[in-house]
Amino acid sequence: MLTRTSTQSLTEQLAGRFAERIRTRLLAPGARLPSVRECARQQGVSPHTVVAAYDQLLAQGLVEARRQRGFFVRDVIAARAGPAPSTLKPLAEPPVAQPVPADASTLIRGMFHRPSDKPQPGMGVFPSEWLESPFTAAAVRRMTSTRALQDASLQYGEPAGDGGLRRSLATKLASINVPAGPEQIVTTVGATHALDIVSRTLLRPGDPVMVEEPGWALEFARLEALGMRILPVPRKADGPDLEVMERYCNAGDGHKPKLFVSVSVLHNPTGYSLTPGSAHRVLQLANQHGFHIVEDDTYSHLAPEHATRLCALDGLQRTVYVSGFAKILAPNWRIGFLAASPELVGRMLETKLLATLTTPSLFERALAWCIDQGQLRRHAERVRLRLEGARGRTVKLALAAGCTLASEPAGLFGWVDTGVDTDALTQRMLDEGYLLAPGSLFHARRPPSTLMRINFATAQDATFWKVFARVRAQL
Amino acid sequence: MLTRTSTQSLTEQLAGRFAERIRTRLLAPGARLPSVRECARQQGVSPHTVVAAYDQLLAQGLVEARRQRGFFVRDVIAARAGPAPSTLKPLAEPPVAQPVPADASTLIRGMFHRPSDKPQPGMGVFPSEWLESPFTAAAVRRMTSTRALQDASLQYGEPAGDGGLRRSLATKLASINVPAGPEQIVTTVGATHALDIVSRTLLRPGDPVMVEEPGWALEFARLEALGMRILPVPRKADGPDLEVMERYCNAGDGHKPKLFVSVSVLHNPTGYSLTPGSAHRVLQLANQHGFHIVEDDTYSHLAPEHATRLCALDGLQRTVYVSGFAKILAPNWRIGFLAASPELVGRMLETKLLATLTTPSLFERALAWCIDQGQLRRHAERVRLRLEGARGRTVKLALAAGCTLASEPAGLFGWVDTGVDTDALTQRMLDEGYLLAPGSLFHARRPPSTLMRINFATAQDATFWKVFARVRAQL
Repeated sequence: MLTRTSTQSLTEQLAGRFAERIRTRLLAPGARLPSVRECARQQGVSPHTVVAAYDQLLAQGLVEARRQRGFFVRDVIAARAGPAPSTLKPLAEPPVAQPVPADASTLIRGMFHRPSDKPQPGMGVFPSEWLESPFTAAAVRRMTSTRALQDASLQYGEPAGDGGLRRSLATKLASINVPAGPEQIVTTVGATHALDIVSRTLLRPGDPVMVEEPGWALEFARLEALGMRILPVPRKADGPDLEVMERYCNAGDGHKPKLFVSVSVLHNPTGYSLTPGSAHRVLQLANQHGFHIVEDDTYSHLAPEHATRLCALDGLQRTVYVSGFAKILAPNWRIGFLAASPELVGRMLETKLLATLTTPSLFERALAWCIDQGQLRRHAERVRLRLEGARGRTVKLALAAGCTLASEPAGLFGWVDTGVDTDALTQRMLDEGYLLAPGSLFHARRPPSTLMRINFATAQDATFWKVFARVRAQL
Repeated sequence: MLTRTSTQSLTEQLAGRFAERIRTRLLAPGARLPSVRECARQQGVSPHTVVAAYDQLLAQGLVEARRQRGFFVRDVIAARAGPAPSTLKPLAEPPVAQPVPADASTLIRGMFHRPSDKPQPGMGVFPSEWLESPFTAAAVRRMTSTRALQDASLQYGEPAGDGGLRRSLATKLASINVPAGPEQIVTTVGATHALDIVSRTLLRPGDPVMVEEPGWALEFARLEALGMRILPVPRKADGPDLEVMERYCNAGDGHKPKLFVSVSVLHNPTGYSLTPGSAHRVLQLANQHGFHIVEDDTYSHLAPEHATRLCALDGLQRTVYVSGFAKILAPNWRIGFLAASPELVGRMLETKLLATLTTPSLFERALAWCIDQGQLRRHAERVRLRLEGARGRTVKLALAAGCTLASEPAGLFGWVDTGVDTDALTQRMLDEGYLLAPGSLFHARRPPSTLMRINFATAQDATFWKVFARVRAQL
């Protein structure tokens, strides 16, 4: 809320707030600012203040006035500088109505810059308090207290990643029936980097890729930036929509999908997990039509070991396994990994070398210790238990606030139907200090949606839901 | 050398050695093995042993026999698995003559896997003994001894990189007259990652890119893998060949270069540094034809501060600055960075987020401490002084071994003319436990060359040059 006691005038505060949103793309290029009257009402200021604030934005070159239509956000970056368009801009036509979709960039930045100190229900990770645990620090200090620190600094390290960690990971994979020796594993800068390496290795620009929809915004944005053709596959409760996949596969030569990107277990944002029958049919299709599958198992630590994974059924023939430790242990250690067939793993390793050379050994060794000592397993159990409680409380609050659940609650995320346009809702909730994750973000073409993703761990806050209900009623 | 005292038979040893080279691509797919008679002579074994070893390789599916032409390395990866060809394979036709070019993959792997414990004259970095210094370990321990370790583990960290480090880097850049505030800097996983981010941000697949030739093999390989069209620009003593650049720039629309990749100071492999006049004309050309320049200043720590840099002249208008700390401080910390104009830096940051999200803060904070305390500067001075001595000794030995110098010795690398085909030389020297960096590696099209790159720090070993002279005389 704007406050009259600030050292800045209300005009300056209002202009500053819009400028910040334009800079961080919370207001996307081409978006229309609210009308003067509406903005005045929303912010509780006089129309005069709004006009003065818009004039400041105009003077700063951040917006442009269009006759009889209002004020629109300029594409500042494209106007000033570069040949290639920014990779994270919305894929659809620039919206001209007032509700402006937050783009992938926004959601990602939201992972780092909270709009306020309030708990953020749109977050993609656990709050750091949930991850805190004495053993992570102990693991790092073990590695830095000896001469091993010099070795972990002055040598590039093994190209595929620390050998000890890869052995620990191989054992961990065996426990979920994914057969991969240490030599089939490549460590990466988080699961993000692993997915990037898989795409760059298996695809050429222009290649058709099947991606589950709804799905993780960053994945759409990356594939788009790499110049791939995205073929959205509706994700259902039991798995991907096989009929749609089959239709893509039966397209003419040159249009056949090369890769399928899938989160089998505790899918983001729906929380769905693949059934064995569906998994079997997906693999049949892959064998019949010769595409690869990358299985993003980022949420594996929150899932039961017996969950169905494509890589376990297939034995890493056509599948590549990807996971990481940002969601459960230490986001800033930036450790992810991939496991692939002996035939593919060498090529993945080459892509890693081209992109980053090696990865820091220190944290890899610390992680290996956490796994080998059983610390990670016990920690994950604690987090799962705590999450279960949070899920129950959050669901109750969401229902009380008038939402319905679009999928059975499971894992970290809830997929919630608000009954109103969540792009508009996101803009209004930002004024209250909350960054939401609106449904449009999880679709390649970003259509308006009444759904939103909530984080069960951060959305168990009654104050949020009170504000939410009030704002929602005003829309 | 094969030794009769080993627990393996001579046949097994010989087959094993070839298998290892095929696996690591020191013998590229399509390459011909030496004739039985020649191999027997080279290895000092009977022709019978060679025939038996080749039969083992045949049985393992690593080579194939072609009637009356001999044994050829199979393209094992392509044969078994994937749709897309490996990105690091030689760009030229597969060689059929015996001398087989070591490919970029080989050289890079050579950075990690030495063929023996001998000093490796083809290495691209200082040996770790040269980098050893108590302050790097102290810096890390400072960061891990307090509560700051939890923060540096449990939060993703700032998207652009640790704010403190970016402030230190901004000051460091100011000392070489490159004007960049902390908000214009993005940290990366080594300089390699920075170059990758710049390419992915400024280029679309198929875009023409000018790259200095000779130049760093990894750069050619990465641009090739990203689907770019490489336009080689001969690098001369005073700078790039401007006439060639102009010719590329005057090509029709759609063929105009989008980017120029340049190592201005202590160029790899020649050691050349750009003159002010040449720099001025390169920038004129860039402004006239609208291309960007990425200046890879990886060797900046070994160069005088007053060296001419394109980014200093241009003030980061059309230029992007890239550097890192693997060459001078701690390769495994994997810290590099880029600095760009305010208009471009946001797009670079988005590419970083798509590729890896953030980078580990712990080492970034340790590095900031090393810079702020003046430790890095003093360390670099010591290394420069030591390198000067090594350079004198190595040059003397190279000349005595019958080589001539293709460029004035400067920096870490010598560009040496051996008078013989260095691809053939590389294969023979491997048998002696030395991995060379043959001239063909530094060209986009990899033509045979009599040149090779030596590392002044690791090539000051009389034994190496004695073996070199003997093998060279046999070619």
